[in-house]
Amino acid sequence: MQTIQYYPVGRIVSPFKDTVGVPRQAAGARDVGAKIEVFEEFTAGLRDLDGFSHIVVVFHFHMVTRSSLTAHPPWDKGDHGVFATRSPYRPNPTGVSIVRLDGVDGSVLQISGVDMIDGSPVLDIKPYIPELNPSGSVKVGWLAGKMDGMIRSCSGDR
Amino acid sequence: MQTIQYYPVGRIVSPFKDTVGVPRQAAGARDVGAKIEVFEEFTAGLRDLDGFSHIVVVFHFHMVTRSSLTAHPPWDKGDHGVFATRSPYRPNPTGVSIVRLDGVDGSVLQISGVDMIDGSPVLDIKPYIPELNPSGSVKVGWLAGKMDGMIRSCSGDR
Repeated sequence: MQTIQYYPVGRIVSPFKDTVGVPRQAAGARDVGAKIEVFEEFTAGLRDLDGFSHIVVVFHFHMVTRSSLTAHPPWDKGDHGVFATRSPYRPNPTGVSIVRLDGVDGSVLQISGVDMIDGSPVLDIKPYIPELNPSGSVKVGWLAGKMDGMIRSCSGDR
Repeated sequence: MQTIQYYPVGRIVSPFKDTVGVPRQAAGARDVGAKIEVFEEFTAGLRDLDGFSHIVVVFHFHMVTRSSLTAHPPWDKGDHGVFATRSPYRPNPTGVSIVRLDGVDGSVLQISGVDMIDGSPVLDIKPYIPELNPSGSVKVGWLAGKMDGMIRSCSGDR
């Protein structure tokens, strides 16, 4: 099968050292401070990023060693297709999180609202632009009425 | 350097056959219909996705053959660090777009609001969950007041 090769442009420095206790979603950890150390050779790519209050971080779930086509959140009753969940145990273990950008200091981004584990490879950083969100009504399927479960809980097995 | 290998779980079927005329952002193409053909072996991962009105599509800019640490949008005056832009010419040419999910028919997702080129490899599909967006005020740095330029324009060189 055709494969696509990416390489880290930086790494996460986070208080969460392993999967135990890491928040399920960035939105559940708004006050948790962390850093992105961007590798020296990519620092020029950060110019003008400091004007943005939030960034989209594309990262690799490096501690994930298995994948599944279904996911069973511990706070929910049944299985769901993995593409209908935010489980990290997915065919390509890629995370996409929106975090607050508190400052840029050379090649280091100070961030908060972090659900990433320490050492996670960062593949891409994009500015968060609310105008790219859907306008109009949004339906969230099986998650309707279950946001609290998803956002607030922590677990060793997300 | 450590590399990360991903593989396509599907591909985009889009009216945009190459980089000429493709909208800059999904938000600039809300009425453009397209499809994601999910490969047979991943179809089980789609269960329950049909309840969501919007999805986050992580895809590969397969027609990008160069990368740069700076980007100069044709509708703006100067260069910006690539991580402060949505340019596809980035160290890892990964796109993250929110599109409307109009229907699920077996392994085919009918979508609209598409800025992807036909044949783009899809790496991941996630449910769009507005509760994961930032609460409170958001600053968009150099893009402030320039959303129209970013969202409305089409170009052969984004």
